[in-house]
Parts: sequence; structure tokens; C-alpha cells
Amino acid sequence: MKLHVLGCYSATPRTNTNPTAQVLEINNHMFLIDCGEGTQVELRRNKIKFNRIKHIFISHLHGDHCFGLVGLISTFRLLTREADLHVYAPKGLKEVITLQMKLSDSWTNYKLIFHELTSNTSELIYEDDKVEVHTIPLDHRVYTNGFLFKEKLGERRLDMNEVLNADIDVAYYRKLKQGADVPDNKGNIVKNELVTKAPKPPKSYAFCSDTAYNESIVPIIKDVSVLYHESTFLEKNKKLAAPTKHSTAKEAATIAKKANAGQLILGHYSTRYDDLNLFKEEAQTIFENVELAKDGKSFTYD
Amino acid sequence: MKLHVLGCYSATPRTNTNPTAQVLEINNHMFLIDCGEGTQVELRRNKIKFNRIKHIFISHLHGDHCFGLVGLISTFRLLTREADLHVYAPKGLKEVITLQMKLSDSWTNYKLIFHELTSNTSELIYEDDKVEVHTIPLDHRVYTNGFLFKEKLGERRLDMNEVLNADIDVAYYRKLKQGADVPDNKGNIVKNELVTKAPKPPKSYAFCSDTAYNESIVPIIKDVSVLYHESTFLEKNKKLAAPTKHSTAKEAATIAKKANAGQLILGHYSTRYDDLNLFKEEAQTIFENVELAKDGKSFTYD
Repeated sequence: MKLHVLGCYSATPRTNTNPTAQVLEINNHMFLIDCGEGTQVELRRNKIKFNRIKHIFISHLHGDHCFGLVGLISTFRLLTREADLHVYAPKGLKEVITLQMKLSDSWTNYKLIFHELTSNTSELIYEDDKVEVHTIPLDHRVYTNGFLFKEKLGERRLDMNEVLNADIDVAYYRKLKQGADVPDNKGNIVKNELVTKAPKPPKSYAFCSDTAYNESIVPIIKDVSVLYHESTFLEKNKKLAAPTKHSTAKEAATIAKKANAGQLILGHYSTRYDDLNLFKEEAQTIFENVELAKDGKSFTYD
Repeated sequence: MKLHVLGCYSATPRTNTNPTAQVLEINNHMFLIDCGEGTQVELRRNKIKFNRIKHIFISHLHGDHCFGLVGLISTFRLLTREADLHVYAPKGLKEVITLQMKLSDSWTNYKLIFHELTSNTSELIYEDDKVEVHTIPLDHRVYTNGFLFKEKLGERRLDMNEVLNADIDVAYYRKLKQGADVPDNKGNIVKNELVTKAPKPPKSYAFCSDTAYNESIVPIIKDVSVLYHESTFLEKNKKLAAPTKHSTAKEAATIAKKANAGQLILGHYSTRYDDLNLFKEEAQTIFENVELAKDGKSFTYD
């Protein structure tokens, strides 16, 4: 699993700060999460191949999270994309994009499929044999979802030394990975756990931005490997967080702790702060394993 | 008069090329012309004060000319702008922006006034005592206008040596500038042309992008001081120009020559070309005074 942070600042794009956009590499997927203005340029800068992006998840319809989408969709068309593109977004974005395409007298030459989100409870919005994606209802000024990306539990792994010692025919390897006991070449049944190891622990990633402090998300993201939680403000500006429905670094850390997250990544900083280390320090008073998102930074999890 | 080129490439924004946006400084105005994705960042990079922009002219609704507008409008709101903002654009853009604002549950705290363009003949769309702006109907795949910005003829200029020699009271200077004959201190009438000089020749700027070769614009832009004319292609790729309704450098130069323009600025280059000097060379076979637009370059006319 690898997270590419393309932009992690709130509000408006500036010369050196980009609005929200991330790419999550997980089980061969390249999931684009949010798409602020300029995201297509940041994708290029971060050398992410456009044709690998097949699913885009939009948290909410504030501009710093979605104004780059129509341009990306248009660029895909200009690059003669053929693969389907799925967009998971609050109801309404389909109407905007459709109107913009109509007015420019250009429609996509690939299939553009909108999955409009309206539920206020967590729902499964994508699933294949290796990964699933759930919404995380957030508490913001407009209808907003975070997204939980979860690897499914994989197959058991062969302990090759033991498998060879036990003299098991290669024809049984598939069944071994599926957890079955199998016969050796003499016809004796070999217990699965003697020749296999547990599956790799599945990884998960929760994207939670934008949101006020909201404990109701804790059961949904419980035990998540990596939590990206917005921290627009520091505690010293907490009075700004409530009316704008944003969080402080301390609040983000409190959610990480309650959810028993493996790691917390902070982001969506207000551009009023020059020293982002203050966010880390504040969060670490509550939760130890804190990282700071940074435009162009990537995080790898093996 | 000063032209700031923020972006002058066609199609999609890239790491080092920006889509169309320009700022024309003329008679204390800062007119923004077109607003591709990323324009607000380019305005910052070029140190153009946001609050000086009061009029935005959008040529057409292809994304590389307008996808940055909604972000700029939103940023103006976040910066607590108070001044009115006038947007001159093809019919339809108002509906898009309004829908986007509605979906993000945010409207501007300043007056946002759309002037929707639908005419297929040139019309006067802005006028004050010093400058006027006319549309230039262009021939593109969607409804498109260029814009002609014209200084009005100013007042006559006092020739101070002659004025003092003629012994004219300061109370008459205003009338002199307006062209009147006035009495000297002895009561004799002084002919205006003896003590004043002709007004400064008014400057004009025509923005013509995007368009196929279109001679019908020549009478509208006749004798323009500076013509920005798109040259998406070179003649060697002319077969691409016709179906996409774009022009070659040679065609742009032909329009400049027929219109008796003072200077031609080329732009809206396809990103397929590495050497932009080929555009200049091609145009100069037809018309001598050619400049190449470049992102971040400005042109000053005194």
C-alpha cells in the first residue's frame, strides 16, 4: 500500500500549496481521492499514469476538493482514454460535469460512470476480490464522506521448507493456500497449519477530510492501519474550528487514539501556519505515531 | 497599456505550460481575459492583485479557457472581496457557476454580475469615459468571441512653453485640453492648435482565440495596435487546423497584415511543438512585427 499526497492544504490553491488530492495505491488499484484545482498537473508532477486511475472518490463539493475534476475528465478525453472511469461523489457533481461537457459540446469517448452518494450511514461503494471501499459519513458544512479502503484477508502463505519436507504434490498448493488439509505423496493427510503461514495482515486506509471532531466515525475506522484525518487548525485557533466544522490536530489525534489506528497522517492545513511541526507536536501529546502530509510526499506500507 | 500573459498553451495544463489566461492593463483597468485551470495561481505568481480585477472576459466554454473561473470566484469570496465582479461570457457559464456555488452551499459576499453573450455580430459590451470593449465574433467549434479593447481618444495635451508664452490664465487650461480657443490675459483669442498638441494616439488590443482563419474579423480589428491571434498549429500541420477550427501561424499573420495591426502576438500553441521560434519564422514570412507569447511574459506599450 502506498499513499501519494498531491495536495494537503485547505481553501485556495497557491503558488506552493495545493488543495486536497491523493492517490492510494492498494492491490494494484490507483484510487484518486479528491481532486482540487490543479490535480491533473500534480498527477503529472508525481508521475502517476493517468490511465491507471479508474476510480475517483470525491468527499464533498467544496471547491478545494473537486474543482479539478472536470479538467481531469476533459484531459482523459483529449488523451483518447478508453477505460471506464468511475466517480463516487455526492449527488450533484454529475449534474455539474454533465452541464460543463454539454456547454463545451464535448463528451467523453470513454464510459464515465457516476455513483452518486446520498446516504448518511456508512455503505459499501466498491468491492472486488481483494479490496473494498466504504464511506465514512463526516460532519462538515455540506454533505461529506470520508472513505475507508480495506484489503480483504488474503490467502494463507506456503511455508516452502515445510511443504517440501512434507512431500506434498504441487497440485495441492492451491488448496493449501485456501486453508485445506491435503494428502502427501504417501496418502497421509497433512494438517494445513503445519505447512502454511497466516495470510499477510490486510492493510486499511481511512481518509477523513473535511470534518468536525466526530466520534461517531470511530467504530467504522476501528483498528485502521493508517488514518488521514484533517487538522485545519491548531488548538490555539479552536474557536475557528467549530463554526467551519473543521478539526484541530489534537482532535484528529484523539480520533486516531480512540480508533486504535496504526498511524495518523495530518493534513488539510490552513495556510495561516508557517510551522507545520506544531501540528505534529500537538497531536503527539495524544497519539504517538503521527506523520505530516506534505504536497508531493508519499508513504509506503509493506 | 501592458499585457501579462499568464498562460498561452492549448488543451490541457501541464507541469510547465498553462492554458489560456491574460491580464490587460489599460487605463487603470486590469481586465482578465480567459481563465483556464490554475489561473488563480498564475495571478499570484505574476503578482497581480486580485482586488484590481473587476472585469473578466471569457471567449468560449472549452475547459482550457474557463475551468479556472469558479475557483477564482470562490477564492475572491474567501478573501472577503467586496467589489463587484463582472463576467462577460457565453450564455451557459452563469448556470454552471451558479450550480457549483449552490452545491457547495456558498455564495459570493460580493456582487457577481454575469453578462451573457449570445450575439453573432460584434457588440459593445463595456464602456466608460476612457475605454471600450467590443466582441469579435470568431469561428470555432463552439460559440466564441474575441475581444477588442480600445482606448478612447484622450484630451489634447498642453504645449506648456507656448501656453506660457501666450500668457493664458490657468483657468483656461481645461478648455484648452478640450480643444477650445481661449483668450489670453489681454483678451485676444488664441487658436487652440498653437498652444496644444494632439492627444496621445489611443491604443487598442484585440484578443482572438480560439478561431479558424476568419477574414470577417478584419474590419472589426482594423488598425489595432496589438493583435493576439491564436496559432495552434504550424502550416505543416494545417490539416489538423481545419477540423479543430484553429489557425496556423501563417494564417494569424495574414489576418494581422490584412488588419494593418501594429504588432502580432502569437499563442495558444499545441504542446506538440518544442521549438516555438518556428511559429515566429512562419508568421514573419507574411508580417514583420511578430512576438511570441510565453507564460509569465509581459508586453508593455507606452
